[in-house]
Amino acid sequence: MYRSHNCGELNATHINTEVTLSGWVQKSRDKGFIVWVDLRDRYGVTQLVFDEERTSKEMMERAQKLGREFVIQVKGKVIERASKNPNMPTGEIEILVSELTILNKAIVPPFTIEDETDGGEDLRMKYRYLDIRRNPVKNNLIFRSKVSMEVRNFLSNNGFIEVETPYLIKSTPEGARDFVVPSRMNEGEFYALPQSPQTFKQLLMVGGMDKYFQIVKCFRDEDLRADRQPEFTQIDCEMAFVEQEDILNIFENLTRHLLKEINGVEVDKFPRMLFDDAMRLYGNDKPDIRFGMEFGELNDIAQHKDFGVFNNAELVVGIAVPGGNAYTRKEIDKLIDWVKRPQVGALGMVYSRCNDDGSFKSSVDKFYDQEDLAKWAERTGAKPGDLVCVLSGPTNKVRAQLSALRMELAERLGLRKPNEFAPLWVIDFPLLELDEETGHYHAMHHPFTSPKPGQLELLDTDPGAVKANAYDLVLNGNEIGGGSIRIHDKETQATMFKHLGFTPEEAKEQFGFLMDAFQYGAPPHGGLAFGLDRLVSILGGQETIRDFIAFPKNNSGRDVMIDAPAPIDDEQLKELSLQVNINN
Amino acid sequence: MYRSHNCGELNATHINTEVTLSGWVQKSRDKGFIVWVDLRDRYGVTQLVFDEERTSKEMMERAQKLGREFVIQVKGKVIERASKNPNMPTGEIEILVSELTILNKAIVPPFTIEDETDGGEDLRMKYRYLDIRRNPVKNNLIFRSKVSMEVRNFLSNNGFIEVETPYLIKSTPEGARDFVVPSRMNEGEFYALPQSPQTFKQLLMVGGMDKYFQIVKCFRDEDLRADRQPEFTQIDCEMAFVEQEDILNIFENLTRHLLKEINGVEVDKFPRMLFDDAMRLYGNDKPDIRFGMEFGELNDIAQHKDFGVFNNAELVVGIAVPGGNAYTRKEIDKLIDWVKRPQVGALGMVYSRCNDDGSFKSSVDKFYDQEDLAKWAERTGAKPGDLVCVLSGPTNKVRAQLSALRMELAERLGLRKPNEFAPLWVIDFPLLELDEETGHYHAMHHPFTSPKPGQLELLDTDPGAVKANAYDLVLNGNEIGGGSIRIHDKETQATMFKHLGFTPEEAKEQFGFLMDAFQYGAPPHGGLAFGLDRLVSILGGQETIRDFIAFPKNNSGRDVMIDAPAPIDDEQLKELSLQVNINN
Repeated sequence: MYRSHNCGELNATHINTEVTLSGWVQKSRDKGFIVWVDLRDRYGVTQLVFDEERTSKEMMERAQKLGREFVIQVKGKVIERASKNPNMPTGEIEILVSELTILNKAIVPPFTIEDETDGGEDLRMKYRYLDIRRNPVKNNLIFRSKVSMEVRNFLSNNGFIEVETPYLIKSTPEGARDFVVPSRMNEGEFYALPQSPQTFKQLLMVGGMDKYFQIVKCFRDEDLRADRQPEFTQIDCEMAFVEQEDILNIFENLTRHLLKEINGVEVDKFPRMLFDDAMRLYGNDKPDIRFGMEFGELNDIAQHKDFGVFNNAELVVGIAVPGGNAYTRKEIDKLIDWVKRPQVGALGMVYSRCNDDGSFKSSVDKFYDQEDLAKWAERTGAKPGDLVCVLSGPTNKVRAQLSALRMELAERLGLRKPNEFAPLWVIDFPLLELDEETGHYHAMHHPFTSPKPGQLELLDTDPGAVKANAYDLVLNGNEIGGGSIRIHDKETQATMFKHLGFTPEEAKEQFGFLMDAFQYGAPPHGGLAFGLDRLVSILGGQETIRDFIAFPKNNSGRDVMIDAPAPIDDEQLKELSLQVNINN
Repeated sequence: MYRSHNCGELNATHINTEVTLSGWVQKSRDKGFIVWVDLRDRYGVTQLVFDEERTSKEMMERAQKLGREFVIQVKGKVIERASKNPNMPTGEIEILVSELTILNKAIVPPFTIEDETDGGEDLRMKYRYLDIRRNPVKNNLIFRSKVSMEVRNFLSNNGFIEVETPYLIKSTPEGARDFVVPSRMNEGEFYALPQSPQTFKQLLMVGGMDKYFQIVKCFRDEDLRADRQPEFTQIDCEMAFVEQEDILNIFENLTRHLLKEINGVEVDKFPRMLFDDAMRLYGNDKPDIRFGMEFGELNDIAQHKDFGVFNNAELVVGIAVPGGNAYTRKEIDKLIDWVKRPQVGALGMVYSRCNDDGSFKSSVDKFYDQEDLAKWAERTGAKPGDLVCVLSGPTNKVRAQLSALRMELAERLGLRKPNEFAPLWVIDFPLLELDEETGHYHAMHHPFTSPKPGQLELLDTDPGAVKANAYDLVLNGNEIGGGSIRIHDKETQATMFKHLGFTPEEAKEQFGFLMDAFQYGAPPHGGLAFGLDRLVSILGGQETIRDFIAFPKNNSGRDVMIDAPAPIDDEQLKELSLQVNINN
């Protein structure tokens, strides 16, 4: 036993108790005749005191030599502090040390172990084990553990069984790229790491497991965008004998449970929005509804007025920026530059100032009169003092651009409050999505998603119009979960594969086991998967998933701490029947 | 909502209730004028009834055509059964069906979906989703989920934080073979899948996480022995500021908690046995102590009596087989054949019958008199009616042989009772183990295990004699967990690597990050990992881990259901800068 108590639990009730503590030297203050040391562990900080009068000369000297991050053990008596610190749980007391043992020395750490550190991102990643000592990172990891436990307890209490599905599975060319694992025992063959346990959870439903969940690592070999990780964690769920409504209810309850238990926030029934409405009103399938600024489509009132830019556009659409009329000309020009950045890609922006006296002043006064601009204001919900910003162009592009502007302005206006939670179901997603480059349709959710009843026939005539029983759970402008009702009969699944461009042979080779399974009495089923990394970061009031992952990888997929990936032995390659061909 | 109730919950209190049920047709009995159908789901079986008097002709005909494993939905009224079945929870009632919907048809399954199936192992693996419908498999998976939840709740309640460590790490040539994962973004480089999160959990201790656990998949590319899987699950734990005693206590409590909550068995304090004693008394570091049959070493009483076989042996050792004197000569000859099988490898076996009158009759009466044989009986604890079996040879080999015989006889004698639980700590393992082929020492547990205090110096003079703070938790003759106190300073770790044959450069390249970490204030720490697959199967009263894994692989590491591993596209190989060279 290295300690009788931890460093976060002693208070005035312990005065005169003899205790043993162990931990790290957070800092020490040496006044010559008295030395104070802040001793830290996971649970808190306790002040130690050594002084000329009560401490032996030998120990005094050793105390004076303690460096930052030394690991020590002390025995001593809890005494009342002369100057109490009401801001820390142990602030009423200190330990008068009678025995000091250095358990391990420490060289000077490359950055300070404080809530606000002087270490940059790269340095903190290389020494992640030191970064984890800092409260913000440590508390995020503890928070994540707590969220996971709440999820598991909720689902277990609701009859879900956690089943571990395999990690060494089979590669499928469909969808994102797989990470593969060469098999030594099966020469020239490879396993793949799962992008999700999708087919296995469906087989568990065929197997009668009824309600399944798993908190599970998944893998995707994508070119990493900011804040994407090659390995990520899903809360993966599936249920049999359910309709969409059953699934929305149970996972709405789970999310409500988390918001209450974790954040102390009570949320009413979650609103539901059609995918089409989300795109029309927010330009986005994961709208942040903590604030308004809904889109106003202006085609009917802004076209055919001699303004060629609008006349030639597929969509003219605007938003009202609350209080935006206060922006100077220079500030508005900067906003225009912002939407013209390649990341956003607008060609320009039209605006109309809504003056306090009810008049308007726009950047296109040549083409539009006060009456026209009043209609713009009405359509976008702008009030006197606001600014109407209008973009135009091809529908999909301009919606994405205006959505980016809406989010940016909301961020600047402080409308995206981290401690406010606005969950939302987005439902009735399209079944298929057109790849504009190739002209082919691919599955918007995945190839196992069921079209809405009666819409199967539309696949031949108007594939883009087919809607699916597919739904996303959105929280504060982030997709935290998504799922669908699945196909559960062989014929529909075969039809689906055909429309996705599989030959019958390809479908059989890759998913034959699933279609076979559907012949032996597959129940209707559906499910949902949450992205745990994202869910945890949003519940934690942050948006960077990396801060909630113990050992994240950088944007090149590297772990800079252990320096992985790395070359392997020739012997190892030979055993795997592999040869590396750089630049082949 | 496909159902108002499940198939396991209706009883006499529900009589006259209108219900909706969904499930699989387990079987149907068609008497012409009446049809009974057993409807099954995860929760149980409910009897449906259709009869001429109360069922429409059309529905009657459809009911008669229902095949095994059809998925159906019925609405109907709960009625009292004419002939009740007290052996099933729903045995008091049946459902008089008013509406029948076929949700999905089923072709005839390749084996019967019954507790005792006619399907062989291979067939059941190929159609694992059908095997999972069978109660024995389904219940094992539910049992596993329950054990995992109990583990998580216990550890969480004891202040452990579950932290997810990465799956894409770095390959190390030390120990068993890694599965590797080629990195597309880092040409010619590979990740490895973890054999355990060992170094990460130690870094979490350096990071101040204090108490860590994780239920986590691990991977080992070994030639598979029976009942080994390339991917397996660990309950991985680590604690800082602890001594061996602290670790044994907490995980003994966890195991006791599981035995109580899962099996309803109360177990006293677990006995502890020195590794050396386990080897001496049971020939084995994971003795099954549910029964006696301890080894009696006979060198001092059996050697120097003109019996050359014993005189030339390093060890002469015997066990008493309870009631073994009843064996016929033919049965004993069969036993001798058994120990001579290549899997056991003994050259022969000497025996001595202990007659009821107190006399002895041995296979070596030429060399040993009654007084000698009386000493053998005394040393092995044999009583009249028993049989003393004696093997001789090199110590390590003969211990393993006699241990195999002891377990085989105990199995035959019914002494290995699945519902009896005898946990045991085996402690003070050697630090190093001699590889008899290469003559080199390697780490018995792993290279991070700490030698016992004061024994570091012995490494130079008598490496095999160094003991470690390493311990195994044994349950019913199976190692269910193992761990150690770790090295936590750079110098000792460097010394250890040197003795394991690493050059300083190799040590730095592979484990530099860990040794670096030890310089920044590493606390004393240690831990333990349970093999979850094994633990669950033993708590479940079985010994085959495959029966507790949803989708296991076969002995060639193949998943025969999805047919993995499999070749991948040339395009995929090219992207990974790889070429397959069969038979290189």
